[in-house]
Amino acid sequence: MASVSAVPAPDASAPSLKVSEADCSTNGRAGCISSFKAADSVIELAPRREPKPDLTNLVFGTVFTDHMLTIEWTSSGGWQKPHIGPFRNLSIHPACSALHYAIQLFEGMKAYRGPDNVLRLFRPLLNMKRMLKSAERACLPSFDVEELLECIRRLVQVDQDWVPQSDSASLYIRPTFLGTEPSLGVKKPSRALLYVILSPVGSYFSTGAKPVSLWADPKYIRAWRGGTGDCKLGGNYGASIYPQYEAVDFGCQQVLWLYGEDHQITEVGTMNLFLYWVNEHGEEELATPPLDGVILPGITRQSILELTRKWGVFKVSERYLTMADLRCALKEDRVKEMFGSGTACVVCPVGRVLYQGENLLIPCLGDCPPLASRLLKELTDIQYGRTPNDWAYLV
Amino acid sequence: MASVSAVPAPDASAPSLKVSEADCSTNGRAGCISSFKAADSVIELAPRREPKPDLTNLVFGTVFTDHMLTIEWTSSGGWQKPHIGPFRNLSIHPACSALHYAIQLFEGMKAYRGPDNVLRLFRPLLNMKRMLKSAERACLPSFDVEELLECIRRLVQVDQDWVPQSDSASLYIRPTFLGTEPSLGVKKPSRALLYVILSPVGSYFSTGAKPVSLWADPKYIRAWRGGTGDCKLGGNYGASIYPQYEAVDFGCQQVLWLYGEDHQITEVGTMNLFLYWVNEHGEEELATPPLDGVILPGITRQSILELTRKWGVFKVSERYLTMADLRCALKEDRVKEMFGSGTACVVCPVGRVLYQGENLLIPCLGDCPPLASRLLKELTDIQYGRTPNDWAYLV
Repeated sequence: MASVSAVPAPDASAPSLKVSEADCSTNGRAGCISSFKAADSVIELAPRREPKPDLTNLVFGTVFTDHMLTIEWTSSGGWQKPHIGPFRNLSIHPACSALHYAIQLFEGMKAYRGPDNVLRLFRPLLNMKRMLKSAERACLPSFDVEELLECIRRLVQVDQDWVPQSDSASLYIRPTFLGTEPSLGVKKPSRALLYVILSPVGSYFSTGAKPVSLWADPKYIRAWRGGTGDCKLGGNYGASIYPQYEAVDFGCQQVLWLYGEDHQITEVGTMNLFLYWVNEHGEEELATPPLDGVILPGITRQSILELTRKWGVFKVSERYLTMADLRCALKEDRVKEMFGSGTACVVCPVGRVLYQGENLLIPCLGDCPPLASRLLKELTDIQYGRTPNDWAYLV
Repeated sequence: MASVSAVPAPDASAPSLKVSEADCSTNGRAGCISSFKAADSVIELAPRREPKPDLTNLVFGTVFTDHMLTIEWTSSGGWQKPHIGPFRNLSIHPACSALHYAIQLFEGMKAYRGPDNVLRLFRPLLNMKRMLKSAERACLPSFDVEELLECIRRLVQVDQDWVPQSDSASLYIRPTFLGTEPSLGVKKPSRALLYVILSPVGSYFSTGAKPVSLWADPKYIRAWRGGTGDCKLGGNYGASIYPQYEAVDFGCQQVLWLYGEDHQITEVGTMNLFLYWVNEHGEEELATPPLDGVILPGITRQSILELTRKWGVFKVSERYLTMADLRCALKEDRVKEMFGSGTACVVCPVGRVLYQGENLLIPCLGDCPPLASRLLKELTDIQYGRTPNDWAYLV
């Protein structure tokens, strides 16, 4: 895969690229304010792959569809035309800033096939807006979020046969945005590549929606104020893998990320976290940490907050939660449920937290306790179109 | 450069690679303890590029030599044979973990041509050891540091004509190590690519060794305890570019990175930092922040500490320094010099720090004050072989 033998030798100096007609005025450090347009898309169809790989028992993110979307940008020429073409390797300069300085970001979203055979995305404009925010932090150029969404809709249409016929599977969509500056100065890239690949997926966790165990140790920090934890930059993820294996060494499945002297609870693995409990004032409360810069603003997180606030059956809070709060509440039998939320798993119950040598057992009736179950059902009913809702976006 | 049109379509599932004969037993989370061997290197010569690009007035890291070193690894087959071949684009799977999760790291070192026409590296084994440490943190496989150094020595020999004939220029060496897992799960990669490219360079800063101005604002944090600031991972650098442009907006050239409630001084841009002053106890002291997890352990930093300790003419300390310490010392006229250190610039004097709306002027006799000048001279004398020293490693 990483073999270089099939690639023609580039000119070692920056090669020239065809320049689009786009008018390109600069806008702060993000570069060009003009955007590509979905209407300019060029589609180059790949040969149909038949038979398709078996779409049952898929390992997350290992199988890809026939096509991908690529859109190139240069500081001098602005955005080029979107291109939907065969899925293939990228030809990347060895000095590329995405490879040396992690000038890279991504998004994660899904296309769902409903029982009506209609394909739907879930609140995709929120992903596009978060992607634009990540791009600004990474000093990558801005773009029109509606145009990117329309490009992605077209890509999914081209590969619509790849969306599984199953209510436990979907087509994972991975927009990716790289700085492709071909030189080693640590600076805003003069070239960039936005691309989108598609991968049919089953359940994220091989165990399904069973409760996960968490390892909570303050010695590793996922993100910090003044850093990039609120953006979906690659660097936030690579740094998490080493602690993840340490969690496994301690017999846990995921890391519960803590922060600060008081061991604030922030996120779980690559998910946001919710605690459903009777709080210190005796109120029934669904709580999740606030968006203070160290928390990824998850679309599922936001949707759970909005749904439960609409229900109006318990208090819903964005507030700080510490390990001391959790331990005390467990002792006093005030914890009802704890779960992670994310695009990959929707909701994922937590059954146990290993903290300072002590196993904290979280109540977990059956495999998925009542609130997590209700949220999982309401959200997937919207995603698969079983419940009409304007959060669903038709492909 | 980022065009995908010239690359053949990969199989979307993981392609098989030829497997080396290396015995591969696993060693914790870093994977395989066996290493490639320099003696197994395969050399494929590129056509000689004549005439070479003009090697004067080089912009840092924009021009590359004719060859590169690549070494592939898979979890099943271990390390393959080192390959020195033509400089060319990499063919990279679009789901590659180096592009999505920043599973990537690099090193920076230089080859110098002395007046005796001999090529030397500067303490290169320290770079190799730091690279191995970064690899462990990034969950990339381990390797034998001596073998990698010997591979690099051979690469530099092949491209020896590219080492400039100048005592203000050198051949920058950029070892790079990527996770090339072709799937989207956030996990230890099952494939990796180590490669090395070479770039003839002049002075890092376009202004030469003139004093730089720094912007010190606690709102951005470079690294955090429990993070990866003590490893040379790509994610540490990409996140620094946005603040760097904010520094420029405030009329400064680089960021002075602060940490903690007490605004500890940590690093400058991509350099370590030294303060030469009369400290709070009236002692003449050269001080730099300690390696407590947020500081990159620079080779030039270590060399400056070792050299000045050997001189024995003032106290040399690894200690915390806060902005309050600096401001107070400036008021009391106790600051002699401040400078950054790094492979790119060797030493780089600081002339001004903008902090909380106040311009703190650092004494800077001439363009390069006495201690910075002496260190620059002693270090470059060793690097260019004008002073014999076992820190120089002959190519």
